[in-house]
Amino acid sequence: MNIEVCFSPQSYQLFHNPDSIVVVIDVLRASSAITTAFYNGVAKMIPVATVEEAHKYKENGFLVAAERNAEIVPGFDLGNSPFGYMNVKVKGKTIAITTTNGTHAINVAKHAHKVIIGSFLNLDTVIDYLRKEKRDVLFLCAGWKNKFNLEDTLYAGAVAEALIYKYGFNSFCDSTIAAMELYKLAKHDMYEFLANSSHRNRLQKLDLERDIKYCLTPNQCPVLPVLEGKFLVKGGG
Amino acid sequence: MNIEVCFSPQSYQLFHNPDSIVVVIDVLRASSAITTAFYNGVAKMIPVATVEEAHKYKENGFLVAAERNAEIVPGFDLGNSPFGYMNVKVKGKTIAITTTNGTHAINVAKHAHKVIIGSFLNLDTVIDYLRKEKRDVLFLCAGWKNKFNLEDTLYAGAVAEALIYKYGFNSFCDSTIAAMELYKLAKHDMYEFLANSSHRNRLQKLDLERDIKYCLTPNQCPVLPVLEGKFLVKGGG
Repeated sequence: MNIEVCFSPQSYQLFHNPDSIVVVIDVLRASSAITTAFYNGVAKMIPVATVEEAHKYKENGFLVAAERNAEIVPGFDLGNSPFGYMNVKVKGKTIAITTTNGTHAINVAKHAHKVIIGSFLNLDTVIDYLRKEKRDVLFLCAGWKNKFNLEDTLYAGAVAEALIYKYGFNSFCDSTIAAMELYKLAKHDMYEFLANSSHRNRLQKLDLERDIKYCLTPNQCPVLPVLEGKFLVKGGG
Repeated sequence: MNIEVCFSPQSYQLFHNPDSIVVVIDVLRASSAITTAFYNGVAKMIPVATVEEAHKYKENGFLVAAERNAEIVPGFDLGNSPFGYMNVKVKGKTIAITTTNGTHAINVAKHAHKVIIGSFLNLDTVIDYLRKEKRDVLFLCAGWKNKFNLEDTLYAGAVAEALIYKYGFNSFCDSTIAAMELYKLAKHDMYEFLANSSHRNRLQKLDLERDIKYCLTPNQCPVLPVLEGKFLVKGGG
């Protein structure tokens, strides 16, 4: 039960292990939005890579979410804000979604044993699933346009800390050490720790403080989105 | 005067800025060996990518250093151990060098405004050079086979901390924040902080504790190796 942390989808091939469970992380905000969507009764989501593909789903009558550079792409129903998914209109629906970083990360990992979606909103649900599965785990941080970001790293550190110190997992990977050390520094006030982070500043300019606070509050949505074929569905029973 | 930190040569193109000074970092041990070599009177070094190229230099009568997976490649004069360069035989010589990670990092950055070699051994020399040049700085961590490593990150954090807090540089990059936070945790005992790091363990198995301690001791070799064309030479006057 080995843990690795990959800081960028660009590096995924260095870490690919067909037997491992990949936890795709895009805390601000795709994986938080997806977790919130399933918690609010969405039936399925279809992660798509491009805005063009998203347009096709829209033409075919789907509800479609499209975000680029932290804003809803004009003409689409939803973006990356979790609050958009707290709406009775989404209940039972299948939603296609494309985002700047998160859906790309899901796509690069699709040949792993299993792909699940991790966010602080379903933190304990993810930990619980991984400790029961007893498999190698790869945390895939979506980052920002293939660059490292702090909030996804903190989340990897949070889950790794629990798996290693409580449930007997191992890691021989410097990025796991870094993620856990950073989480240890940040955990008592993640919002404050991220004050100077690049994406918090990007969202702050767009007046999305409420989204940030929500996305950093653990265990509000105890559901486990998993990838099955081309669909994200609610897993874990 | 903007600072960025790139954790892997694989990601270099995301950060490339033709106007910036790139600090190539391979603390354990290529950049420490190169710094030591110039401090001990080596005239020039030629970083080469492959063992095959290194062989050609050897056939042409050069002193040649070749390291793969932390060991000297059989048939070559030197490897990555800084102690190999504390020898009167190297004085005045031109040495071709190929290493697992460090020479690859030098190679990917060669079109930057300037490439310099950073190690804890020349820490203050590097800080002094960068503060006088007043340009954008990119720290390029050589890592281990394109993966993140801790010791190169700590060094980037050490230099970034000085440039930002003493000399008015800025950073808007999450990897700079992470590097500085990790350095803050580690600086009082880097040797201990790296106890569980992957490369320290790799070298420990090869009985290279002495190398590690040396490479983590700041300011033993106040020289500045810089890339000029295909040669590394002693820069900074």
